[in-house]
Amino acid sequence: MDFTIHAATLEDCKDISRMILELAEYEKVSDQVKITQRDLEQDGFSKNPFYHGIIAEVPEQHKSKDGHTKVGYSLYFYTYSSWKGRAVYMEDLYVMPEYRGKGIGKALMSKVAQLGLAAGCTQLNFAVLDWNKPSLDFYLSQGCFDVTADLGYHCMRCEGESLEKLAQGDS
Amino acid sequence: MDFTIHAATLEDCKDISRMILELAEYEKVSDQVKITQRDLEQDGFSKNPFYHGIIAEVPEQHKSKDGHTKVGYSLYFYTYSSWKGRAVYMEDLYVMPEYRGKGIGKALMSKVAQLGLAAGCTQLNFAVLDWNKPSLDFYLSQGCFDVTADLGYHCMRCEGESLEKLAQGDS
Repeated sequence: MDFTIHAATLEDCKDISRMILELAEYEKVSDQVKITQRDLEQDGFSKNPFYHGIIAEVPEQHKSKDGHTKVGYSLYFYTYSSWKGRAVYMEDLYVMPEYRGKGIGKALMSKVAQLGLAAGCTQLNFAVLDWNKPSLDFYLSQGCFDVTADLGYHCMRCEGESLEKLAQGDS
Repeated sequence: MDFTIHAATLEDCKDISRMILELAEYEKVSDQVKITQRDLEQDGFSKNPFYHGIIAEVPEQHKSKDGHTKVGYSLYFYTYSSWKGRAVYMEDLYVMPEYRGKGIGKALMSKVAQLGLAAGCTQLNFAVLDWNKPSLDFYLSQGCFDVTADLGYHCMRCEGESLEKLAQGDS
């Protein structure tokens, strides 16, 4: 199936918002999604954007049963390793279920890798949930490795009241 | 002991570079450090910086046995959660061994949390190595939680030839 990949614009935020929810439903955490289309517009398209996006689109004649032509996306941003320098982080990689198995996910990830290399990055980083075996297998097949399993990295987070308290310097 | 915290400037890159190596030695991976002072200058102080830094400094009379007054640092950058929006990532948090236990690490982390909240972030994220029990315990005592243990997140990475191949779209 033909598809194209383009850099996300302000006009894509509606579809990104829809697909973020679809992905969260797949990951069984849709109640966790607090992001709105408006947030995506503001955070991705202001002077110092917090993320960048790319969109996979199919021709009108291949639109989804719900009438969508934007059928996949990836959100990414640039990060930094104090050992290796510039890196790119792929926050999301998603293809609508009815368009899977056609190389769209691979093409999106490849584009993020291209953009990262062009920006001088030497690493592409991302996270995967341990129960998501199909995704994990796909990533391993692409030569990625599991930093948590191989090197013992644990992702840590502070949020909500703990974050407020930390910022206030209370012990 | 008195200490101050200030935003890192170009002039701090020499000390940041020195402390990155000290931290890597502590983490037993100093052979992994490819970053030079020059990289830090270029990547942190260009128009679109890849990272930001803060420095902990002690007065001249409390300088280290090697003559250093810059005794701790944190590198951080802004990231994005497609569920929760703006986030701040603490790449490094380091205090020289002879200055530990004086609240400097806590003050650095608190400053990163403050800066993150001021920028509209709702999460502070970072990674910890599973064998580094003292650090893990410190973070847990600050109300942080272990996303890998609690939610099953694995950090994944693609680099070197695999990244080149991915970018070229070879299967």
